Amino acid sequence: DFMHALQNDVKSAFGSSKEQLEELLANGIISWGEPVKRVLEDGDLAVAQTKSSDKTPLVTMLLEGTPGAGKTALAAKITKLADFPFTKLCSPGNMIGFHESAKCQAIKKIFDDAYKSPLSCIILDDVERLLDYVPIGPRFSNLVLQALLVLLKKRPPAGRKLLIIATTSRKDVLLEMEMLSVFNTVVHVSSISTSDQLISVLDNTEVFTKHEVEYIQKKSHGKRVFVGIKKLLVLIEMARQMDEKGRANKFVELLEDEGVIEM
Amino acid sequence: DFMHALQNDVKSAFGSSKEQLEELLANGIISWGEPVKRVLEDGDLAVAQTKSSDKTPLVTMLLEGTPGAGKTALAAKITKLADFPFTKLCSPGNMIGFHESAKCQAIKKIFDDAYKSPLSCIILDDVERLLDYVPIGPRFSNLVLQALLVLLKKRPPAGRKLLIIATTSRKDVLLEMEMLSVFNTVVHVSSISTSDQLISVLDNTEVFTKHEVEYIQKKSHGKRVFVGIKKLLVLIEMARQMDEKGRANKFVELLEDEGVIEM
Amino acid sequence: DFMHALQNDVKSAFGSSKEQLEELLANGIISWGEPVKRVLEDGDLAVAQTKSSDKTPLVTMLLEGTPGAGKTALAAKITKLADFPFTKLCSPGNMIGFHESAKCQAIKKIFDDAYKSPLSCIILDDVERLLDYVPIGPRFSNLVLQALLVLLKKRPPAGRKLLIIATTSRKDVLLEMEMLSVFNTVVHVSSISTSDQLISVLDNTEVFTKHEVEYIQKKSHGKRVFVGIKKLLVLIEMARQMDEKGRANKFVELLEDEGVIEM
Amino acid sequence: DFMHALQNDVKSAFGSSKEQLEELLANGIISWGEPVKRVLEDGDLAVAQTKSSDKTPLVTMLLEGTPGAGKTALAAKITKLADFPFTKLCSPGNMIGFHESAKCQAIKKIFDDAYKSPLSCIILDDVERLLDYVPIGPRFSNLVLQALLVLLKKRPPAGRKLLIIATTSRKDVLLEMEMLSVFNTVVHVSSISTSDQLISVLDNTEVFTKHEVEYIQKKSHGKRVFVGIKKLLVLIEMARQMDEKGRANKFVELLEDEGVIEM
Amino acid sequence: DFMHALQNDVKSAFGSSKEQLEELLANGIISWGEPVKRVLEDGDLAVAQTKSSDKTPLVTMLLEGTPGAGKTALAAKITKLADFPFTKLCSPGNMIGFHESAKCQAIKKIFDDAYKSPLSCIILDDVERLLDYVPIGPRFSNLVLQALLVLLKKRPPAGRKLLIIATTSRKDVLLEMEMLSVFNTVVHVSSISTSDQLISVLDNTEVFTKHEVEYIQKKSHGKRVFVGIKKLLVLIEMARQMDEKGRANKFVELLEDEGVIEM
Amino acid sequence: DFMHALQNDVKSAFGSSKEQLEELLANGIISWGEPVKRVLEDGDLAVAQTKSSDKTPLVTMLLEGTPGAGKTALAAKITKLADFPFTKLCSPGNMIGFHESAKCQAIKKIFDDAYKSPLSCIILDDVERLLDYVPIGPRFSNLVLQALLVLLKKRPPAGRKLLIIATTSRKDVLLEMEMLSVFNTVVHVSSISTSDQLISVLDNTEVFTKHEVEYIQKKSHGKRVFVGIKKLLVLIEMARQMDEKGRANKFVELLEDEGVIEM
Ligand SMILES: Nc1ncnc2c1ncn2[C@@H]1O[C@H](COP(=O)(O)OP(=O)(O)OP(=O)(O)O)[C@@H](O)[C@H]1O
Ligand SMILES: Nc1ncnc2c1ncn2[C@@H]1O[C@H](COP(=O)(O)OP(=O)(O)OP(=O)(O)O)[C@@H](O)[C@H]1O
Ligand SMILES: Nc1ncnc2c1ncn2[C@@H]1O[C@H](COP(=O)(O)OP(=O)(O)OP(=O)(O)O)[C@@H](O)[C@H]1O
Ligand SMILES: Nc1ncnc2c1ncn2[C@@H]1O[C@H](COP(=O)(O)OP(=O)(O)OP(=O)(O)O)[C@@H](O)[C@H]1O
Ligand SMILES: Nc1ncnc2c1ncn2[C@@H]1O[C@H](COP(=O)(O)OP(=O)(O)OP(=O)(O)O)[C@@H](O)[C@H]1O
Ligand SMILES: Nc1ncnc2c1ncn2[C@@H]1O[C@H](COP(=O)(O)OP(=O)(O)OP(=O)(O)O)[C@@H](O)[C@H]1O
Ligand SMILES: [Mg+2]
Ligand SMILES: [Mg+2]
Ligand SMILES: [Mg+2]
Ligand SMILES: [Mg+2]
Ligand SMILES: [Mg+2]
Ligand SMILES: [Mg+2]
Repeated sequence: DFMHALQNDVKSAFGSSKEQLEELLANGIISWGEPVKRVLEDGDLAVAQTKSSDKTPLVTMLLEGTPGAGKTALAAKITKLADFPFTKLCSPGNMIGFHESAKCQAIKKIFDDAYKSPLSCIILDDVERLLDYVPIGPRFSNLVLQALLVLLKKRPPAGRKLLIIATTSRKDVLLEMEMLSVFNTVVHVSSISTSDQLISVLDNTEVFTKHEVEYIQKKSHGKRVFVGIKKLLVLIEMARQMDEKGRANKFVELLEDEGVIEM
Repeated sequence: DFMHALQNDVKSAFGSSKEQLEELLANGIISWGEPVKRVLEDGDLAVAQTKSSDKTPLVTMLLEGTPGAGKTALAAKITKLADFPFTKLCSPGNMIGFHESAKCQAIKKIFDDAYKSPLSCIILDDVERLLDYVPIGPRFSNLVLQALLVLLKKRPPAGRKLLIIATTSRKDVLLEMEMLSVFNTVVHVSSISTSDQLISVLDNTEVFTKHEVEYIQKKSHGKRVFVGIKKLLVLIEMARQMDEKGRANKFVELLEDEGVIEM
Repeated sequence: DFMHALQNDVKSAFGSSKEQLEELLANGIISWGEPVKRVLEDGDLAVAQTKSSDKTPLVTMLLEGTPGAGKTALAAKITKLADFPFTKLCSPGNMIGFHESAKCQAIKKIFDDAYKSPLSCIILDDVERLLDYVPIGPRFSNLVLQALLVLLKKRPPAGRKLLIIATTSRKDVLLEMEMLSVFNTVVHVSSISTSDQLISVLDNTEVFTKHEVEYIQKKSHGKRVFVGIKKLLVLIEMARQMDEKGRANKFVELLEDEGVIEM
Repeated sequence: DFMHALQNDVKSAFGSSKEQLEELLANGIISWGEPVKRVLEDGDLAVAQTKSSDKTPLVTMLLEGTPGAGKTALAAKITKLADFPFTKLCSPGNMIGFHESAKCQAIKKIFDDAYKSPLSCIILDDVERLLDYVPIGPRFSNLVLQALLVLLKKRPPAGRKLLIIATTSRKDVLLEMEMLSVFNTVVHVSSISTSDQLISVLDNTEVFTKHEVEYIQKKSHGKRVFVGIKKLLVLIEMARQMDEKGRANKFVELLEDEGVIEM
Repeated sequence: DFMHALQNDVKSAFGSSKEQLEELLANGIISWGEPVKRVLEDGDLAVAQTKSSDKTPLVTMLLEGTPGAGKTALAAKITKLADFPFTKLCSPGNMIGFHESAKCQAIKKIFDDAYKSPLSCIILDDVERLLDYVPIGPRFSNLVLQALLVLLKKRPPAGRKLLIIATTSRKDVLLEMEMLSVFNTVVHVSSISTSDQLISVLDNTEVFTKHEVEYIQKKSHGKRVFVGIKKLLVLIEMARQMDEKGRANKFVELLEDEGVIEM
Repeated sequence: DFMHALQNDVKSAFGSSKEQLEELLANGIISWGEPVKRVLEDGDLAVAQTKSSDKTPLVTMLLEGTPGAGKTALAAKITKLADFPFTKLCSPGNMIGFHESAKCQAIKKIFDDAYKSPLSCIILDDVERLLDYVPIGPRFSNLVLQALLVLLKKRPPAGRKLLIIATTSRKDVLLEMEMLSVFNTVVHVSSISTSDQLISVLDNTEVFTKHEVEYIQKKSHGKRVFVGIKKLLVLIEMARQMDEKGRANKFVELLEDEGVIEM
């Protein structure tokens, strides 16, 4: 009954997995450059292999990149495009305050459900959070780690196929835990790192006028740029609320203050 | 039923959140200088962004400063001014003796309630205390830490907006725990650090006569000053009980003894 | 029911708080010198401030000194003189074998009771023992530590006033735990450190004849003296049982053997 | 009833032990060279000794090698060929999320069942996973370790014979735990390490045409080769989905990218 | 009921405390020299002080010495001679396999019972074992340690007097734990360290003839001797079973082999 | 009822203690040299002393030696020869998966039963396994350690006599744990270390013909030999299954491969 309550809790938390996927994609995927395209292609390949090969009924892919690089949204996008009959988001946000035991049970439940469908996709979001990892110590849940290490290797029952897409911003930690080598593919999710990519996002969000964009382009041209798409969208949102007069200039200053472009 | 009892316990502890906010502000906010003004402005901006933007329904702000700098009172002030339909104080004082599990449940409950209101504000007061942090070890509750790391990133359900204001005097520890980077804004709460700011507080409290204030001003002028508003108010309160004769002088001595102004 | 049994256990252990205060003062307070006077004065000030100021309804004082310096007895004396409507001794002796959870509950209960009275005084005796501190490790109860850190800062409900007097012989440990800075005042309880102070105690206990005291005075004069009042009283008690012949001399030898006066 | 539920859980997880053996062998055993032959021979010897000798009713064998070298499949093959009346797979995949206590019970149950049959074989798959081993710390379940150390030495009841085949990719760890010396035989499972062995696998899988194989042979000839059979089969499977034009070349590139053959 | 069962268990284990005292003294106390006399005298003094002084109703004494020096037997002897109305042996042998909680309860029960009698004596035997101390780590029960630290300082209720005699062979460990300074007196229990003391024991046990004793005396004379009385008695018992012919010589050889006397 | 079930479990595991003794001796004791004789004599002495002396009703003996030296079989042999009314094997094999609490209870039960018989013998087999010892850490059960430390010193009730024979291959660890000094005697169990001893075993097992033995003797003569009897018997058993042609030679090679005789 505890497990029962637990499962209901998980299910009803924020609606179904489909709805959760949609929410993760609420701000859309902006095609700001080659790196985005490549991740989506790698995702397509993994989806295709899962569907077609009988000899590799389990395909596992890890999306890794700095915080806010867009890992979760890209995992959601790939999963949505795959459109498998069974799709599940295994996310720390659905397991807040769970002890490692409850976490394991919740994770296992997701996999057990997936094993019942002929073709399934599971997103293991924010693996370091699923593991309750903290660098002081370091500490983490070994129970969850061992469960994941086994689940990432475990062949689904005969006739079942499963794609696992995991995300992390601590590739180094996963390496140390000997989890990295268990994945079939490890894909890097890049941050925005050129002025052109930055401008491409600005064009897309339609907050600034053409003139403003040109001004920002001139100001950022040839400078070092480094920012995750997630943070950039927050900064643009702040600009949206600024007075239009001098907004482009203030935005450039903001980008400099926040270390997005070099001063 | 344990959880039920627990929640009642929390609720009934010291009255409602509104009342608790009032108590935190019982001694008022004294405008002793620019730093105070700036923190309140930053708070206003965060409040505004929470209200207006649909793309950033979750806004998170950390007030950090030395012990007694006035962090909690300022968080309460900002929250009071925001006047959101749902306001909640998540404070260690309401969770004394709680094991980490009960703490997590209590915190989660506050967030779950907030997610039900269209516009909410949560004060996470004294984060290092919520985490049961102690520098020997160091030790802390990883269960609470992981819960906070997830809650500070978790998008509220569609149509809900949430402002989180946290306070801490251990910014360094939060950095080590990789919690600092999760906040949208980190705002520094200054201590009183000039003679003028000190005098401004004295003027405001109306314990000393004009003459006395002038005397203290002369004595402290040009000297290094450093004290949190909280401690300064206690010292002034002690002065209030002193004999009026020679009080100004004794007060200056007290400030020197306590290391508030250099000798 | 466990908590219920627990509380009865605590109450009935050794009688009421009043009786316990009396027992702590069974051997009286001897005025052996300035240091004793000063501690009592500091206590009076704290008592006065608790009573009179509305802005500082919580006053906290720490008595620290070497083992046996008389900290507990002095805390009891101050509390007795204050004669507040609610007085409670929070002592490790009432919590033997309690796990940290039970300890926390017992401590919390004392504070909750205090919060119901308009004017209360709580003695937190032997803080390092309340914390189950041991230097090997070091180990201590973080649950109790966190509870104390919060309780020492928590403003009583509107209209309530609370004085907390804590004692410790491990000021260094409390510093490391960041507890020291939470107290409003830290008062040092001195050991007996001069021949005159020693003689003052002897005069007072009336075990030795005038002649004997003079003999001891001559023998100890100009020598380094160091002993807590608690141990000194035990040694005097041993002398009381000695044969009167040569007693003064034997007592001096005893003091030397025990390292009370330099040989 | 918990234990009961547990056992049902284990049994029903993925079908019977026989079926599980079959699944482990779903991709067959390719005879790519001498090393494969030798492991199977060593297995046969152990099987023979278990059957015939009365003085050594317990025979224990460890298969060790790098991840993906084919340890589990070879253990399954040996066991299948032995065709003992009782065969059981003791695998981490059947114990996901089990606490060490439950794990111990599940393992003990398998041995207790084996002790009831005159001639039994148990596969202890992935010993480091059974032990919940992680190099950070390191951490592992001492309860499971101690159980295994005892079970690997415990003489079956009179008239019973038992063969234990264990697999591990962390021989070094087992040595440190003083488990290595408990095994009667330790057998190394080699990875593919010559161009000829690689070609032998390609011939066998029938994905590439004769021409393609010859091309790959020419390209890999004389170069250093190192890959486990498990990964090699995944890469071949990826090739199967490539466009036939230029496939051989792309495959060689893939092998180089993945570090299978030196560039 | 668990506690109830526990207490019965303790009581019925090996009979009453009186009987247990007798058993500890089954082999008697041999007066082999000055050191033995002095320990008994110190014991008498402590007994007298407990009885007579009203100001020191709690007297605590620690007997410390190497393993087998005779600490437990001497504590039993002193207690027996004191002949107090309440006498209790607090011994690890009555608490085998107890978790620290149960141990604490059992210890507390003994003290609570003692507090009910006007004049009591408690033997805390083998303190390091009561604490579950092991040098690897080191590890020990902090719960029991804290309980003892408090109980060794806690004044009995008005009108009650209590003598505590503790034994240990790890004085160094008790020092590190800050327990040593809590005792009123620390008394050293010596091992046998001269040929004369050795002979005195032999005379007393009446295993050897006069001639044999003289032979052993000649052989050991002037050599370094070091052995606890406990071990010496075992060795003498082994001699008792030897053939009388050449026994004295064989015994000397045994003493040399065992390192009792230098070769 | 848990304890009840537990005890039944222990009893019924592999039959009675007598039967278990027999099983430990299933392969017999081969008199391969002086060392074997000496251990058995030391055992006889301990048995005799237990029976005859009233002053030493508890006799404790430790058999220590490298893994497979024959410690357990020799302890069983001594016990069998003693033929005491109560005999019990306290072995890790009967406590698989037990938590330390259950282990302690099981051990205590064995001693409690022994205390009821006038003359008892307990074998504490594989002490490091009873302690759940692992060198990584190191880790071990302190609860079991403390229980053993106390039980090895605890005098049986009046009129009862007890012989404890313990075995270990980690004498160094027992020393560190301060357990070694608690034993009355520590006896070394040697491995086979000369060619003659080796040949003596071969003669005894009757696997090889006279000629073969001579051949092996010639080959091993003058070389360093080192092997425990347990492993040697396994190797001989392997030889028994070899083709008779060239068997002697192959056996010598096997001994060399396994490091039994130097190459
Ligand atoms: N090309 C893009 N790739 C990824 N996300 C994009 C892209 N364009 C827009 N976005 C938006 O940017 C945000 C990326 O946030 P997301 O949570 O996916 O990042 P993350 O790397 O998972 O962050 P974290 O490290 O905090 O988990 C989402 O709101 C997403 O809709
Ligand atoms: N300008 C001001 N800013 C903040 N607090 C002020 C100001 N003026 C007066 N106060 C009063 O000063 C006190 C500040 O105490 P507060 O508890 O907020 O400090 P804090 O930094 O949270 O302390 P701590 O580090 O102990 O948590 C409050 O009583 C508040 O009413
Ligand atoms: N001037 C004095 N100050 C304090 N105690 C005094 C004084 N004169 C006599 N005493 C007596 O001395 C004893 C002091 O013991 P007390 O337990 O208070 O010391 P303590 O510092 O708390 O010891 P511990 O460090 O062990 O807790 C009491 O019995 C008290 O009655
Ligand atoms: N000669 C072979 N030896 C072993 N496996 C082979 C061989 N030929 C083909 N295979 C196939 O290769 C795969 C080997 O995978 P297996 O799981 O046995 O490797 P492993 O070493 O146990 O991996 P891990 O280290 O991940 O546990 C199986 O699918 C098996 O059917
Ligand atoms: N003078 C003596 N002092 C102490 N014990 C003596 C003396 N004479 C004979 N004995 C006997 O010697 C033995 C001393 O053993 P005891 O258990 O008291 O030693 P111990 O120091 O407590 O040992 P351990 O360190 O193992 O606890 C007892 O059997 C006691 O009867
Ligand atoms: N002289 C002998 N001494 C001991 N064992 C012998 C002797 N001769 C034959 N044996 C046989 O050798 C084997 C010794 O194994 P045993 O389990 O006693 O060794 P052990 O030292 O306890 O091993 P471990 O270190 O693994 O516990 C038994 O099967 C025993 O019957
Ligand atoms: Mg993410
Ligand atoms: Mg604050
Ligand atoms: Mg005190
Ligand atoms: Mg495997
Ligand atoms: Mg003793
Ligand atoms: Mg053995």
